[in-house]
This record gives sequence, C-alpha cells and structure tokens, in this order.
Amino acid sequence: MAYLKPGTVEVRTIDFPTLELKDGPGVAPANIGRKCRHGVILKILATNICGSDQHMVRGRTTAPEGLVLGHEITGEVVERGPDVETIDVGDVVSVPFNIACGRCRNCKERKTGICLNVNPARPGAAYGYVDMGGWVGGQAEYVMIPYADFNLLKFPDPDQAREKLLDLTMLSDIFPTGFHGVVSSGAGVGSTVYVAGAGPVGLAAAASAQLLGAAVVVVGDLNAERLAQARSFGCETVDVSQGSVEDQLAQILGEPEVDAAVDAVGFEARGHGPDAQEAPATVLNSLMGVTRAGGALGIPGLYVTDDPGGIDQDAKSGTLKVRLGLGWAKSHRFTTGQCPVMQYHRALMMAILHERVHIAKAVNATVIGIEDAPTGYAEFDQGASRKYVLNPHGALDGAQPV
Amino acid sequence: MAYLKPGTVEVRTIDFPTLELKDGPGVAPANIGRKCRHGVILKILATNICGSDQHMVRGRTTAPEGLVLGHEITGEVVERGPDVETIDVGDVVSVPFNIACGRCRNCKERKTGICLNVNPARPGAAYGYVDMGGWVGGQAEYVMIPYADFNLLKFPDPDQAREKLLDLTMLSDIFPTGFHGVVSSGAGVGSTVYVAGAGPVGLAAAASAQLLGAAVVVVGDLNAERLAQARSFGCETVDVSQGSVEDQLAQILGEPEVDAAVDAVGFEARGHGPDAQEAPATVLNSLMGVTRAGGALGIPGLYVTDDPGGIDQDAKSGTLKVRLGLGWAKSHRFTTGQCPVMQYHRALMMAILHERVHIAKAVNATVIGIEDAPTGYAEFDQGASRKYVLNPHGALDGAQPV
Amino acid sequence: MAYLKPGTVEVRTIDFPTLELKDGPGVAPANIGRKCRHGVILKILATNICGSDQHMVRGRTTAPEGLVLGHEITGEVVERGPDVETIDVGDVVSVPFNIACGRCRNCKERKTGICLNVNPARPGAAYGYVDMGGWVGGQAEYVMIPYADFNLLKFPDPDQAREKLLDLTMLSDIFPTGFHGVVSSGAGVGSTVYVAGAGPVGLAAAASAQLLGAAVVVVGDLNAERLAQARSFGCETVDVSQGSVEDQLAQILGEPEVDAAVDAVGFEARGHGPDAQEAPATVLNSLMGVTRAGGALGIPGLYVTDDPGGIDQDAKSGTLKVRLGLGWAKSHRFTTGQCPVMQYHRALMMAILHERVHIAKAVNATVIGIEDAPTGYAEFDQGASRKYVLNPHGALDGAQPV
Amino acid sequence: MAYLKPGTVEVRTIDFPTLELKDGPGVAPANIGRKCRHGVILKILATNICGSDQHMVRGRTTAPEGLVLGHEITGEVVERGPDVETIDVGDVVSVPFNIACGRCRNCKERKTGICLNVNPARPGAAYGYVDMGGWVGGQAEYVMIPYADFNLLKFPDPDQAREKLLDLTMLSDIFPTGFHGVVSSGAGVGSTVYVAGAGPVGLAAAASAQLLGAAVVVVGDLNAERLAQARSFGCETVDVSQGSVEDQLAQILGEPEVDAAVDAVGFEARGHGPDAQEAPATVLNSLMGVTRAGGALGIPGLYVTDDPGGIDQDAKSGTLKVRLGLGWAKSHRFTTGQCPVMQYHRALMMAILHERVHIAKAVNATVIGIEDAPTGYAEFDQGASRKYVLNPHGALDGAQPV
Repeated sequence: MAYLKPGTVEVRTIDFPTLELKDGPGVAPANIGRKCRHGVILKILATNICGSDQHMVRGRTTAPEGLVLGHEITGEVVERGPDVETIDVGDVVSVPFNIACGRCRNCKERKTGICLNVNPARPGAAYGYVDMGGWVGGQAEYVMIPYADFNLLKFPDPDQAREKLLDLTMLSDIFPTGFHGVVSSGAGVGSTVYVAGAGPVGLAAAASAQLLGAAVVVVGDLNAERLAQARSFGCETVDVSQGSVEDQLAQILGEPEVDAAVDAVGFEARGHGPDAQEAPATVLNSLMGVTRAGGALGIPGLYVTDDPGGIDQDAKSGTLKVRLGLGWAKSHRFTTGQCPVMQYHRALMMAILHERVHIAKAVNATVIGIEDAPTGYAEFDQGASRKYVLNPHGALDGAQPV
Repeated sequence: MAYLKPGTVEVRTIDFPTLELKDGPGVAPANIGRKCRHGVILKILATNICGSDQHMVRGRTTAPEGLVLGHEITGEVVERGPDVETIDVGDVVSVPFNIACGRCRNCKERKTGICLNVNPARPGAAYGYVDMGGWVGGQAEYVMIPYADFNLLKFPDPDQAREKLLDLTMLSDIFPTGFHGVVSSGAGVGSTVYVAGAGPVGLAAAASAQLLGAAVVVVGDLNAERLAQARSFGCETVDVSQGSVEDQLAQILGEPEVDAAVDAVGFEARGHGPDAQEAPATVLNSLMGVTRAGGALGIPGLYVTDDPGGIDQDAKSGTLKVRLGLGWAKSHRFTTGQCPVMQYHRALMMAILHERVHIAKAVNATVIGIEDAPTGYAEFDQGASRKYVLNPHGALDGAQPV
Repeated sequence: MAYLKPGTVEVRTIDFPTLELKDGPGVAPANIGRKCRHGVILKILATNICGSDQHMVRGRTTAPEGLVLGHEITGEVVERGPDVETIDVGDVVSVPFNIACGRCRNCKERKTGICLNVNPARPGAAYGYVDMGGWVGGQAEYVMIPYADFNLLKFPDPDQAREKLLDLTMLSDIFPTGFHGVVSSGAGVGSTVYVAGAGPVGLAAAASAQLLGAAVVVVGDLNAERLAQARSFGCETVDVSQGSVEDQLAQILGEPEVDAAVDAVGFEARGHGPDAQEAPATVLNSLMGVTRAGGALGIPGLYVTDDPGGIDQDAKSGTLKVRLGLGWAKSHRFTTGQCPVMQYHRALMMAILHERVHIAKAVNATVIGIEDAPTGYAEFDQGASRKYVLNPHGALDGAQPV
Repeated sequence: MAYLKPGTVEVRTIDFPTLELKDGPGVAPANIGRKCRHGVILKILATNICGSDQHMVRGRTTAPEGLVLGHEITGEVVERGPDVETIDVGDVVSVPFNIACGRCRNCKERKTGICLNVNPARPGAAYGYVDMGGWVGGQAEYVMIPYADFNLLKFPDPDQAREKLLDLTMLSDIFPTGFHGVVSSGAGVGSTVYVAGAGPVGLAAAASAQLLGAAVVVVGDLNAERLAQARSFGCETVDVSQGSVEDQLAQILGEPEVDAAVDAVGFEARGHGPDAQEAPATVLNSLMGVTRAGGALGIPGLYVTDDPGGIDQDAKSGTLKVRLGLGWAKSHRFTTGQCPVMQYHRALMMAILHERVHIAKAVNATVIGIEDAPTGYAEFDQGASRKYVLNPHGALDGAQPV
C-alpha cells in the first residue's frame, strides 16, 4: 500500500526487503544504506490500517508520494540477520510500531517511543510513516524489522498465535496505545473513565479500562455506529451531539464528573452541529471540564507539530487554544505522546492468550485482502466502525472476532 | 461473641456502646475512658468471622477472657457524635478493621494500618483484637466507631447497599486484604500469580488478581473443598500434598515459576503428609522457590511477634527460618503487614456496585445467626470452605452470593 | 493587611478571631457561621507576602474590598478548640496554605490542595484568598486555623523553631510549592533542570532541585537582580532577554535541552523587548522547546480560570495558545495545580532543622514590620529580589538568612 | 588477579582477551566459545577490589582455582566488535558489574541484575565471579565486555573522565549498589536513615543518602576506623559494641527509630563481644527493631544460596532465623538482590561530574598497583577503612580523593 497523493492510496509492487534500509520515498538521508545485521525479514501475517495512516492519506502531513504505509505488523520470521540471537526463523512475532534500538538512553529507560538512534530527524521512529526515519511500511507482504532481538515480541507457541491472530495483531499499536492512554489517565480498579472518541483507539482504550478493573467506562462520540459498537461490550455511551457531556455523565453516573479521561481523538477533533468545523482543542477542553479535580488525562490521540491542513495559522503549527486555567484549578495532569508499546505488549499478549480480553471483538476487527485496502481506507475515513486488518498471505482467511 | 478460653467462644450480653471507650477485657489502660465525640454508634448489619479471630480462639495469642470479638463490620449509623461532620444517622457504612485517627503522621501518609494514636502499646489498632488497643469488637448488635469521618466508607445509596450487603461486607477486611497482597506482589494485567492458601483471604486475593487483570491465577492448598471453591470462579489450583508446587505450576503454565506470589497463610503454616507439623516458614520458602527472579511476594498472611502456641522457642517469638539467600539471589521484594484498608475500599466498593467482581461468591459467603457463631467458628476451624457472615439484625435474611 | 482596590492594600484593625468563620469580605455564604471546634487560634510569628497575593493586588482577580490577605502562616497556638487532640497551647506550628478537612475523599488521597469540604464554590481553599472559601487571612496578628489536628505541622522543639523561624516560615507555601514543581517535573539525582522564573517560587524550586540532587540547575528570568540571587547559591542562569534559551543552555550544558523543567511564572508571563506584552503561553511553549523528549514539566506557577485583566478574551477565561503538538511529539507530561503542602512539609522541615538546605537565604528572606507591608507589596511588585516576611509580634526581630 | 585457594590470590599472566568467551576456570559449559561480535576490548584504567570478592577469597564460595577476579571496571575502548554501533575506540567507559544482554524480558524491564541470557545457570551474571557465567574478571590489564552498546556508560568527555577517574570508578558497582540500598529503603529528602556496616558499600550508601537529601544519616559498625571515616563526611555513627543501637539512635535523633534502614553487611554478619560468632540474621533483626512502622529495609548486602563456610546447616544453605513477626507487625517492606546498576549509573555520573558528591573521598579510595593487590586484599580483609583501586596502566598515578 503506497500513498500517492491526498485521498489516494494504491497497491504497488515493491522490492523484497533486505537487511539494509535502502533509499526510497521518505527515507531520511542519514538512514540511507543503513545496515541491519540485527534485523529480520518477516512474512506478514496481519497488518492493520490505523487512524494515523488516515492523517497522511487525507493530506494532513508532508508524506511523500510513494511512501509505503503500514506500522501495525504481525508476522513470521523468514530470515534472520547474523547478529540476531533470540529470534529464530519460524517464530511468529508482534512488531511494536515504535522502532527502537535498545541501546540509547531513552530505550534503556523504556521510552521506546522516542528512541534517539533510529530517526536522524528527531526522537522516535515508525514503519511507513512520514518524518519517522523512512523505515519501509508493513502494509505489504514482507518487511524488514531492525533490532529484532530488542523490538520483537515472540509468541510462545506459533500455532496458538495463528489461532488468535486476529486479537494478537492488535498488539502492534492500537491495544497498547489505548491501554497507555488509560494507564496515564490514572484509571484503575473501581475508576469511572470517560473515553473521548469511539474509533479503534477509543474502543481499545475502553476495553483496556475494563481489563484494568474500571467500574464504569463511558465512551463519547458523534457516530452512532461507533457508539453502538462501544455498547456491544459493556460500555456506557455519550452522544456528544445530544447535549452536554456533563449532563449525560450525570445521568449515567449520578455526578457530572469522572475520575479519569482519555483523549482518543487528537488534532483532527471537530465540533458538532450543522456548521461544525475542526476545533483542535475542543476535546481537551471538554475533558478538563468532566474530569474531577485531582484526576488526569491520558492523551494517546495524536497532536502534530505541523499540519498543512490546519484550519488556521495556529493549527498549522500544532498550537491549540487550551483552557489551561481550568486544568490548573483542578490540579490535572496531562500525559502525551506515542505509546511505548514495549512497556505493555507482553502483558497484553498474556491477557489475550488467556482470554481475559477480546480486543478484536471490541474494535470490530474486519479482515480484508490487501487489494481491498484502498476501499478499507475509504470506508474507515467515512467513519465505519471497523478496524481493518489486511491479510496478505491468507493467514486470516475466515477469521472472525470472538 | 466473646472469647472465653482456648477453643471456646460464647454469645454474651454486653452494654449498649457509648461514645467513650470504657474499661473492659483487653482495653489498654491509657485508652480507658477515652472520649469519642468524633465517633458514631452503628447498628450492625453484617459482621464476619475472620481467620485472624481463629488465632485468638485457638489460644495462639494472649487474648483475655471476655474479649468481644469482631473487626469486620458493616452497619447503619444510629447515633453520631457532636464532632462528626460528614456522616449522618441513617447512612450505611463500611468500617475498615484498622482503627485510624486521621491526624498522625502515618494516617496522613495513608498508612492507616499503623496509626500512631489509637493504641498506646504500638502502632496499629483494630476492633475486638488482642493487643490492638482494646476497642470493643463488632460481632455484636451495636458498636462504637471512633473518628467516624475519617474511618467510615459511606455507601452512596443505602438501599442499594442493603441489596448488595453480602458483597459489601467483605470491604471491611478480607477483600482489601487480599487485594493488598496482590498489589504488593506486583501483579497486574497479564501476570501469572500464585496464591498460597485457599481460605477466605486467599480466595479474596485470587478474585483480586482477576479484577486486576491477571492472566492466570493459581491457588494452592491442602484442602480439596477449598481448592474446588477456587476453581469455581476460574482459578487454577495446586494441591500441595500432591507433589511439588513447581511441577504442578509447570503443568499449568508451561514453566515452573510465576510472576508474583501471595502468602495468604501466615504463621500457622504447616507441612503435609502423615506427620505434618507446623512449619511457620514453609510457605514463604516455597514462594521464593516459585516466584521468578525480579518478582515480589505480597504477605497479607499474619505473622506475629509472640505466639504462645509456637512449636519451638523461635516460633514463640515470631522468628522463622527463612531461606533469604534464595530470595536475595532472585532479587525478590517482600511486603508485609496489615492491609491499610482505606487505600482500597472505595475502589473495591465501586467494583462491587458496578458488578465487576463477585466477592461474596468467590469466598462462599454464608450467612448465620449470631447465636450460631460458635458453630461457625468451629466449622471454619475445621477447614470449611466458607466465609461466615453474622446477621445480627436480619438485614441478610435470605441473602445468597450471586 | 487588607486589599482595598487594585494597587492598594492597607493595615486595618480586625476582630480577634474565634473558633467560627464569621461573615466578612469574600466569605462564601455557605461558610458563614461555620463552627470550628476542631480549630485553634494562632499568634502569628511569621507571615509572608506571596506572589499570588500580587495577582489580587494588581486587580487581576475579583477579590472584594476588605479581604484580609495572607496564606503563608507560622505561629504559636494560643487557644485550642475542644475537639483538638494532638496540638497544644504553646506549640509552634506551620500552617499549609491549603485548608483541608482530612475527612473527604481527596484529603484521604493526600490531595489536600483540592479538599472537597472547605470551599463551597469548588475544590480547594486557602486563607485570605479570593474564591477560596473566605477563610480569614494571616497577614495579621492572630488567625484561626480549622481542622488543626490535620492541617498543622508541629515543630518538635518550640525554641529551636524560633531560632530557625526565618527558614521554617517558608514551609507554609513557597518551599513545598517549589519542591512540588521539581518533583512533578521528574527531576532527581543527576538531572539537569531548567526553572523559568527567578521570583521566590522559582528560587525555591531551584533550591529544591539542589536538595533533590540535581546535577545542574539553571534559572531563567529577565530581572538581573533576581538572576544574581539565583547565582548566589550555585545556580546557573539564563537571561531570557539575551538570546534564545536553547543557545544559552547549550553554552552551559553542552546541549540545548534539559531533563526537566519547572514553570514558576504562571499566567502573567510576558514577552521581552521594548514592546513586550503579556504572553500567557510563552513560558510553557518555551519549556516544551527546551525539555528533552521524555521529560516532564512541573507547573506550580498559577494559571487561573478567570482573569479580568487578561490581554484578550481568551486570556480572560484562562485559555492559552499552547503548542501542544510540540509537547506531544516529545512525549511530555504536564502536572498542574496547587501544591499539596502536606505531602512535603514534614520532610522539608527535617531538611531545614538538620541544615541540609538554607531556604531563607536562597529566596533572600527579608523581615519587615506589618506596618511596612504596603511598601513590601510595592517593592515586590517592582521586581525586588526579596521574599518579604512580616513580623507581627517581633519574633523575627533581627533575623537574617544564614 | 587470580583466586588460588582460600586465603590466597596471585598476579598471573593471562591471554589478551578476544571477542569470544573461551574456556577457563569457572566458565559455564554452555558459555564456552560464545561469540561476542557485540563486545569491545577495554584497556582497564581503574578496577576495584570489592567486598564480595572477599567472600570468594575467604573460601566462602565454590570459586575454582584460577578464577580471574574483578567486576568493578572502568576503561578505554581499544577494539570494538563489528556489531557495536554507539561505542567507539577511544571512548572512556564505565562497566556495570552486572552483565546484561539488553534483549531478554528482564533487561527490557530494567532488571539488568537478573538478565536471563548471559548465565546458563541462573538469572544474573558478573565478571570474575563464581557461578556468574564465567565471564573473565577485570582486575587485569584488558578485558572483554559483551553487549557493549547496552552495557557501557560512555563518559561525555574522555579527558574530564580521566581527571575524575577516582570518583568515576565507583560507578561500576559500589556507588550504585549503595544508592540502590537507600532508594529501596524508601529514604529521601528529610529522612532519617540508619546504615548497618561502614565498609565501602555502607559508606557509599551513606553518601547516597546525603545526595538524596536525607536529614540525618547514621552509620553503625564495630570498627572504629571505619566509623571515623563515616564521620569524616558528616554522618553520625553508632558503635554497635557500645550498647544498643536503639539507645544510641535515641541520643542522636531524640527517638530510637529511623525512617529507613540499609543492610550493607550481608550474610557474614557477626555478633560482638569476646566470643562473637557469625550471626547471619543479626543485622536484619536489628534493623527491624530500629526501623519505624511503615518503613522499609534496603538490603544490598549479599546473602547467598550456598555457603560452604556457614556456621551451621541452615547457614550453609542461606537460611536465616529472621524475626519476621516483628517486621510484619511494623508493616516493613524488604528489598533484596543485586543492584541493577544501569538504573542509576548515568545519574550518579552526572552528580560526580558536576561535583554534587565526592564518592572517592567518602569511601577513602586508595590507589595501588596491580602487583600490590594481594596486599590490598589482605588489608581489606583486616578491616582497613579503604576502598582499594587497582591502577594497571598508570591512569591513576598520584590520584587522591578530593
């Protein structure tokens, strides 16, 4: 899957990967020719379309023509570099979307979302993403994964992994990302949690909150289909177009506030009503309103430093009108940034393998062929309440969420 | 319920409580006559028999004749002291078994299990317990609760509280105690957890581990009935009389170790086999064996400073032969002590009220009349897999775990 | 000291306090007549002028005429309420500026800055402050302190306390506030820390960072006198009017970033240069620029929900143009709100008593008579690099920072 | 420096290291021939004698004849393996005594003291130590360091590093080990801390406690010279042969308890008096006595699983008579195990480079030639209050603690 221009993606034939990062669309100059003896080649068993891919496809970034998309990757190792020690050919593995070297200060501190060594432009890298180092994306048949010993999560039993693949594919990004949002919101056993946004990340956050023992999980959105999806696994819902969030929370909880809140929307937030425009700060400001004093906000939703499609000059530079005075009066804490997947993926794998959570069902995982990916992008952009999973080698033929 | 002598308890008539701690069996001299304008009188709706009561009844402590037992109390406020501000007559409340003043250094640091101000003998107090300040126990019809504003957990809706009383009564001790054991073992989402002991605290720990998202919870005991109870809500079990714990864990988990372990047995641990004796350190030493390097042990099981019934001089002074070298080699962390109930009870109440956990069912709560308490003590001592709940005013008539 | 109108304070004679909150300027209606049997009357030994008082005096709040100012109070107990148990007449005590009941959910969770029970308008209260419940301020000779057992920090030895009074008076607000800023910035042993603002809170944050073991503490301001004060106890400094903060940091540290940052300025931040205006977000945006990816910002500087003097409509409602996209890209965490003094004051008292820190010297504590307070306010407003301490009963006669 | 037999070490000529772990004394069979393309060869600039080396030399372990000793290593890179990316020839680096792969579950969780991949026998490895994988020790001229990118701490400026080498050499073990003990005891700003043992680890713990802001640091020992050393940098001291620790603490602190305690002695603890024998649990039991309820014990002192020289059968298997009942009554927490050096060394390096701590002075670092090492071992064994630093290439000629 390659990005062509705003609104257009297409299936292209690309070279089989090697243990080297070659020149190509979006590859950082200093990364060109980088040797990856520490890498492996994966045959991709499952790879998902992510909401953050949509930002590129909508033309809200500076992604170059021809960028191969895809950072949610699960696969089987078909070749291992000579420096790899702990991963073998035949292993089935999950790939964190963050690329991390395992050797820099940040990686040693578990901050793998901002590795200092994989992206010459700035801390943090990802597969198939603009400004993230130029590592080739994984909405493809094969992909090269650098620093394989460090990055990969190996499933204990390959056969079991194939059986649960539709759930396990969520470990590369969306499930840890939602989970991180909830953890950084301070929620835990007995909490009331409000999740803004019922897209896949929001639904993953909601499922995570349940897994963490939250008493009540409320999900808010404008999209009725997505809200119905949230209710399907036990969440309460708020339709933000139907009156104030406070009032609706009060009806559900008996009080207009929650203990913790998660922003699963990000910078493309918009108002509602007939003339609704983008309103980048509207979710954050709303969350400060509904989060109790002493609570915290987890912000896994993406906010960017540069947005060519921003509604005004401030938005173009990632500047938002935040009602910080309100947050300050309530002693709120705000945690932003990419999820450091490696902090969570092993634990979440265990929860999946032992059937403590049904994440594929929660996010309505839907398998499509790689040739149908352009349609998947389009439907997702229209608000389909589905998480599209590409199936390049048939490993997911017939798979359904359970 | 008063303690008479080793092996004997009886139902006695006592004075209606007042807002003063009067002289009586076990009352610390410096506490006699202590005024409690900050206290309330509760009509007791539910009060449970605890394993730690058994230590007294078995004669393993210096409890005086006539001590009124009972530290697991849930009730309705029938009188409030003049300094009480936030609790009203008619409120239905849970009483943490730790008595805490809310004014000393430890209480301010949330260490309410070791309040400095309620027991002249040493930090920490409890109702109806030897060496714990002499506060009159709550296996009774009415009881006085000091520092009511600080201590009590008020249920949001008294009617709802009465409906869920059989679960909510576990908030005074056993549920937070089990939960604390799990939290201090470091277990969380995706963990494998081993709980030694399938008595009520062990079962509460197991239910807590599930609520916290553990992947697999294994409970070990000698008592087949108790192990069956553990299996009834989804735990795996190990019969410690049937081969090594390591081997049994390996069968369940594919490896002989767990991430985290909980000692829900305490100092009356015993070996097994035909000549099994008490072996106070046997559980701890076993847990070090099965806990992975880097793991931790939560130790809610009671260890005492003085045990008149100890098998030898060491045991009598609470000294155990601990294989510390093993724990050190594995970098284990050990957390001991009374559970600071107040750190957890509100969150656990929310989990109960929103039906995220069914604690009464997990511990097999069994309602009996106060006149049947002596039988309850005896059956519990025989290993009945039940948590006996006394029902002094009929509030639990007909209640069953759901 | 009473507030009269923007720019004007004056010394007034007020009634001797009683154990009741009587009606008066700024007293919340629901608080009028509130009985405080749990309170004490203090003879004030030291009481400081705070930067946040200046917000009122500058007319940047809705403070009513006649409001008695002062929330930084140290004193001797001269009368105790009948419900007080642990504080005696003659004790010398520090008063946290946050008023807290010790009985609500937030107090039990140590969030004493947002007590739910002392301010009918919203969580959190303070002495002598607009919208903070109406509790009478302590820039006075005597003051009533409610919930004395819970709120007060009693010094172990009254004589020693009087000797070190000029340091200990900083425990009521400024020292814990600065310390909280550093703790919430994630700084610790070996960190590089940037503190924006060299007023008393900034200097206290700098001294706190040193006490916590920071490797390098850099303080930034426009005011040369204040920067010199920072250098006097070993800080590095940045004059923000002399080129970019990044460049100056690079000269000091060899890199343009720090591990952790503290905003000790707040909403009255301004730009620099001949036409400098208020620019409420300028400090926060600058801090995101200079804090490394994975770092955090502690924000003890005050941001308000309503600012009648704001430069535009956004500022008037406490809305700032925050470059959140930048913070998100760097995975920053932001912690706002009033410092919960009680979490820190005991530890900081110990550090003072054992001479591990010289906070009075760091902030250039300057003793003045209560009659000179209007001058103190004026000089402080002009940027004097002093922390003014009022001395209503002569306890600080001749005291100098050491 | 090679171990010969109990009581005897000698200087031997060994082969120049290569990037492979060859067979030799103590090398685990599965490690023989292990290729280390990820390793570097260091020219050793400083390497210290450690108290844990003494356990081997005293014959308290199963160390084989010919084992090359030494796990506290600082050096200059003279050769780098082909897979090394971030370390260059000429870099001056500190080597954590824990060998860690950076690729296993434990390393990813920062538990580098129990790496799963470097020692076939059990989690955790070290250079020159019995049962720790067989990695060749560094009391030598050159040494091979595996997984160099992950393990090594590179000093920012090699020249500056050489100037401060006598302090920086403490980063490989003793300083982080002492620091870890204090951190795991829960001590911080304002704490009172008791450190049992005034050997180098105890002194490093004491200096760490000061760096962390402790109010009072008390060090206990029997050795007058070592106690004098502790006093030389501001500690209080207790001579444990002169009456009870409680009484002496009460004289120093005004109360017989401390907030936090560190066991810097370990399994070779002994009683005192004319007939004093080893008493392995005596330090731990004493620490439980003097640590306040709610406090914690950090236990960096080594306890072993097998001790051929133990005084009885229990001691031989690392089993101690611990008064756990006392610890339980006081809600103590115990943290054991090897220090995970990598969690601390960067921060402590910053504290050294910016002169926030003078660790060489605190531990009385004493430079000796490698040929004098046998004498150093002997003097250290006699209780010399010195930390011996070997100087194989003259980099420390003339160096003195400052």
